[in-house]
Amino acid sequence: MKQFKYTELEAILKKKIDANSFTPTGKLPSVRELCKLQGLSKATVLHSLHRLESQGLIYAKPKSGYFVTQIKPPKRVLPKQIKTSSTPRNVSVPAILKDIMTRSAAFDILPSAGAQGDATHLTVLNRHLNKAFRSSQSQKAFYYNNSDGDLRLKHAIINHYGGLNQKPDELCITNGCQHSLFISLMATCSPGDTVAVESPTFYGVLQILEQLNLKIIEVACDPEHGISIDDLTKKIAKWPIKACVVSPNYSTPTGACMPHRAREELLKLAVKSDFCIIEDDIYGDLAFPPFVSESLKSLDTQGQVILCSSFSKSLSRDLRIGWVFGGKWHDKITQLKLVTQLSSCGSIQQGLATFIEDGHYRRYLNKHVYAIKQQQAELINFLQTHWPEDIRFTQANGGISMWVELDESIDTQKSYNEILQQGIVMTPGSLFSASGQYKNFLRLSYIHPLTKAREVAIKKLFSTLLVKK
Amino acid sequence: MKQFKYTELEAILKKKIDANSFTPTGKLPSVRELCKLQGLSKATVLHSLHRLESQGLIYAKPKSGYFVTQIKPPKRVLPKQIKTSSTPRNVSVPAILKDIMTRSAAFDILPSAGAQGDATHLTVLNRHLNKAFRSSQSQKAFYYNNSDGDLRLKHAIINHYGGLNQKPDELCITNGCQHSLFISLMATCSPGDTVAVESPTFYGVLQILEQLNLKIIEVACDPEHGISIDDLTKKIAKWPIKACVVSPNYSTPTGACMPHRAREELLKLAVKSDFCIIEDDIYGDLAFPPFVSESLKSLDTQGQVILCSSFSKSLSRDLRIGWVFGGKWHDKITQLKLVTQLSSCGSIQQGLATFIEDGHYRRYLNKHVYAIKQQQAELINFLQTHWPEDIRFTQANGGISMWVELDESIDTQKSYNEILQQGIVMTPGSLFSASGQYKNFLRLSYIHPLTKAREVAIKKLFSTLLVKK
Repeated sequence: MKQFKYTELEAILKKKIDANSFTPTGKLPSVRELCKLQGLSKATVLHSLHRLESQGLIYAKPKSGYFVTQIKPPKRVLPKQIKTSSTPRNVSVPAILKDIMTRSAAFDILPSAGAQGDATHLTVLNRHLNKAFRSSQSQKAFYYNNSDGDLRLKHAIINHYGGLNQKPDELCITNGCQHSLFISLMATCSPGDTVAVESPTFYGVLQILEQLNLKIIEVACDPEHGISIDDLTKKIAKWPIKACVVSPNYSTPTGACMPHRAREELLKLAVKSDFCIIEDDIYGDLAFPPFVSESLKSLDTQGQVILCSSFSKSLSRDLRIGWVFGGKWHDKITQLKLVTQLSSCGSIQQGLATFIEDGHYRRYLNKHVYAIKQQQAELINFLQTHWPEDIRFTQANGGISMWVELDESIDTQKSYNEILQQGIVMTPGSLFSASGQYKNFLRLSYIHPLTKAREVAIKKLFSTLLVKK
Repeated sequence: MKQFKYTELEAILKKKIDANSFTPTGKLPSVRELCKLQGLSKATVLHSLHRLESQGLIYAKPKSGYFVTQIKPPKRVLPKQIKTSSTPRNVSVPAILKDIMTRSAAFDILPSAGAQGDATHLTVLNRHLNKAFRSSQSQKAFYYNNSDGDLRLKHAIINHYGGLNQKPDELCITNGCQHSLFISLMATCSPGDTVAVESPTFYGVLQILEQLNLKIIEVACDPEHGISIDDLTKKIAKWPIKACVVSPNYSTPTGACMPHRAREELLKLAVKSDFCIIEDDIYGDLAFPPFVSESLKSLDTQGQVILCSSFSKSLSRDLRIGWVFGGKWHDKITQLKLVTQLSSCGSIQQGLATFIEDGHYRRYLNKHVYAIKQQQAELINFLQTHWPEDIRFTQANGGISMWVELDESIDTQKSYNEILQQGIVMTPGSLFSASGQYKNFLRLSYIHPLTKAREVAIKKLFSTLLVKK
């Protein structure tokens, strides 16, 4: 009898999960409520819940109860693709935007709220770092680490990628992805050269272009499928470029992911028109299962792609360790690593290497992407529930950010200070373009759990913005 | 009676120390020998030695015996001041020299010999780092550290300098002195601009000038007193410069230290002719007592000096933490920090901050400079003993390097590979100039104790070089 009871409840709950009945939050009724509703004992209810949990359908949130793992948000209208300006121009980032960019590097609307969630992996990581700092400490204090990086870490990174077909001497360790992008652009371009970027694009790239006196040409992007090869082809026919910076996997701010076919076309175009592809793959490790990331570099047989990435988004922003597979430009890039930086911290590299070798990084990622996916679902449901008509946004299959479009009459940048005074850091859309576009856009991130404090902040944010309509 | 015996021996030994009788190595006779020679008991001899030790006149080296603290090397002839080329030129570092530079960052003729000496301070430092990595670990993993650096570390650095009269918002933390120099030159100059440097100068600067497409004008230097203000004045009258890179305190390779008067003149000239002084003060903390370093920046009232430094030479090369006091260019420099690097490792900064605050850095430096000074004396005596006629070299009052001149017929760079094949890394003089000078020079460092293995290496080095005469 008892066996039937928990199987019954299990079936009922399964049906409801399938029917998406627990939206918007995904929260199941409490154990006590379920006991009452079904006239079952606590043990029976828990048994059913544990079975659903082991099937990956629900998960327990400490002190909050059980939640549905995959909430299916209703179909939405995606943000529009905006026509990009069509001539190369110098990049001039206004001071106000630089200020905002500096703050937005925090990647959160409530930076002072701190981080929640499981930090077990960081305790393990710190143990590895500590061990590395203690080992041959006086050797490391008196000698610089190899400028191009620790060999063991290089092997660990290459193994992590799997099918990349690259060797350690084609890889240079850097101080983070921004550093990787900086030396890659410096290695491939000279002042006055033109660089193609996605529109919208990561604002860190705009700042590099400005500082290196490079011209920009912004290429149209689909909010789901990324850079338009058609638009790129047209533009470079008129204005030859030296490099094209793309983020094929879950690019910020849209979270777009390039289809395989477009990747092949981009590569062909790069070889034919002789420009360098600088692939920013910082979100590559954050694909939501069952999706799997593919890097452009893995399709590259001629050294035309420079792959830049780091551990900042996937593991910790505190490590300041990134990397570059430099393709044809590897020697120039390692030279620039030496010139800009001399070397990176050897102990952190060695600690990271053993952490990855021992399988901790992979294990953490497997859990981490799952949590982010859930946070995305929560954020989407929250937005849908409160502003079903007023905002459009992207829903990526990876990464940590969504691109939010508001009514054309709204200027997010103009409201920046008013919102900041309420203790909320917004990332206005105008940061992501060098031509003053995306005034009615903003970026939201789901790297943090949607706590009550963040819900309140998002409500304040949108009520301030939407009143301007 | 007993009292007189040890006082007698003490007086005898003092006289001999004054007369420099224990050259070249500074080693006193063994305790057993002293017992025999003076007909004294072991206890009496040890009593005398301990009294001399407590006066700082001798020190005990584990398993080696007692050594004189300050060996006075005989007067020597200093290396010549070489006439510098007199027009600005582009910098083009040959590939072979880049290769050598990469290896010479090791700063040692025997990199594989490892580091000896007391590493207690590193154990303490690692404890501070470990604590910092553990504290608020998930906060640090999910947020970037302030791009311009940790406030607590900034305060610690300012307090360490004493009379600098700078505030934390005039200071930007970087990833080492090379990074500081790179962003300082990028902030003050545009491609094609001319930069004055000392001749000979640190090769890292030559590489930055090459990569940033800056022109160089090399200014004559006195091997003891550094840059010639006369030569600089003449040159900038003809060819205006945007910046002048100088290392007033124990500059590499010569170890020269600018007199106070010359510092004042340089500052006046910079204000009058409107160029930026980029002060590389990486050896500033390594003045040998009773000498005390004075930074150019401390004399600067108009923000004309950018002070660059790091902990790499004074504490550990593994930390990758440096800093810039940017003067007038502070905002531009912090912008470039963000663009090139985003931020530095927060945990390392915080661990360093508490290490400095607790007085460990100062305590370590007090011991460390003493050890380096002793190592310099040992190296000088070794060179004097074996090649009294064939080489000239500088004897600095701080820093870690000496500039060695050989017969004009000798080309150190040409012998580089032959010497490398013997497992010895030489730093040929040609690295330190953009105009092919200093072919018969090389740099030696005394950052490591002069072990038997290093003595053998130096003997091999000079016997290979001097045979070419």
